[in-house]
Amino acid sequence: MPKIKFTIITLFREAIEPYLKASMMWKAADKGIVEFDFVNLREFGLGPHKSVDDTPYGGGDGMLLRCEPVFAAIESVKQRDPEAKVILPTPAGETWNQNMAQDFSKQSGHYIILCPHYEGYDERILTLVDYKISLGHYVLTGGELPALIIVDSITRLLPGVLGGETSAAIESFSDGDNIEYPQYTKPADFRGMKVPDILLSGNHGEIARWREEHSGHAN
Amino acid sequence: MPKIKFTIITLFREAIEPYLKASMMWKAADKGIVEFDFVNLREFGLGPHKSVDDTPYGGGDGMLLRCEPVFAAIESVKQRDPEAKVILPTPAGETWNQNMAQDFSKQSGHYIILCPHYEGYDERILTLVDYKISLGHYVLTGGELPALIIVDSITRLLPGVLGGETSAAIESFSDGDNIEYPQYTKPADFRGMKVPDILLSGNHGEIARWREEHSGHAN
Repeated sequence: MPKIKFTIITLFREAIEPYLKASMMWKAADKGIVEFDFVNLREFGLGPHKSVDDTPYGGGDGMLLRCEPVFAAIESVKQRDPEAKVILPTPAGETWNQNMAQDFSKQSGHYIILCPHYEGYDERILTLVDYKISLGHYVLTGGELPALIIVDSITRLLPGVLGGETSAAIESFSDGDNIEYPQYTKPADFRGMKVPDILLSGNHGEIARWREEHSGHAN
Repeated sequence: MPKIKFTIITLFREAIEPYLKASMMWKAADKGIVEFDFVNLREFGLGPHKSVDDTPYGGGDGMLLRCEPVFAAIESVKQRDPEAKVILPTPAGETWNQNMAQDFSKQSGHYIILCPHYEGYDERILTLVDYKISLGHYVLTGGELPALIIVDSITRLLPGVLGGETSAAIESFSDGDNIEYPQYTKPADFRGMKVPDILLSGNHGEIARWREEHSGHAN
């Protein structure tokens, strides 16, 4: 049993599956730590063209995802797993951050991520949604990249996914808002740009102090 | 000449190119509005293993991107186009938002996006960087998803990319922080959940008022 399962409901599986297959995400799946599944929203579309969207009531540009295909797609997953929770990436949601990723990574669960596309979705779809998550104040062509960000940021925190077990804990934002100190690697002198002497000194106390002094903090 | 060119420096082209090929991004490239290119950082790696990273001076977990391969990769692009600007997705950068996407979309340019990977990068790499951009307060396995978000959110704003020329202007966050009103499409009654009568009324003044009253605002 994987610790976490993600089922992604999308019209564009081919756009996002390669990311999961090429990265550390795939190794996590291979180890059985996480499981990825896809549901093709088009299969639940209406009429001969398998339509999934329509124009907004009251006028306005753009096409909205309709209730019928979305409800049917989500229910097809919940029939097999009634405990599955639904995540909707939407600008109206709670802003995703590292603390939220950590909370998700600490418990087992099956998360259905619905990727909205086109210009929006019928409001009644929200009755199915357990978590509304915003990735930031910008507009994308669809919910596929937000879905991948949620999956990536949670999965890399699961025990056994990263090579060094402690790596996840020391990185940027691991405490929610701390930005780490400047880092340097070989060579000590690159085109006249030198690594600060203190970092080459071997004096761990001084190095720790220097890093503390040079830590940035998120606004 | 495309209006904007993006050159993505990455170790994982195969993970992200399918997104650009499956979406509206590809149509924009097909129309010549935007151009995508990739540089394989590995080609500039050191030694027989084409190494691109090393351990941090002063101790600590993780591997940092080294200067040599990154400088060489960026210089290979700048030799052909000295005007190209460098974007680095990093938690220490300015938080990406719709206003920034709009600013980028209004001018022509060639942007080199460097995808950091592993646990970080040598600080001296910042001397090459024109724009440090943070996608939010969370940690990812690499800079590939942030790169795609930057590309997607800019490209969809370029004239001629979206079907309806006005769509981009009316969407969530188009003014930087406004979240749009609830939207509904057919059917008017879905499992007893009804579309608000006012939206079916045809009274445009009332509809505009209702939408104003029901607009959310980002925090």
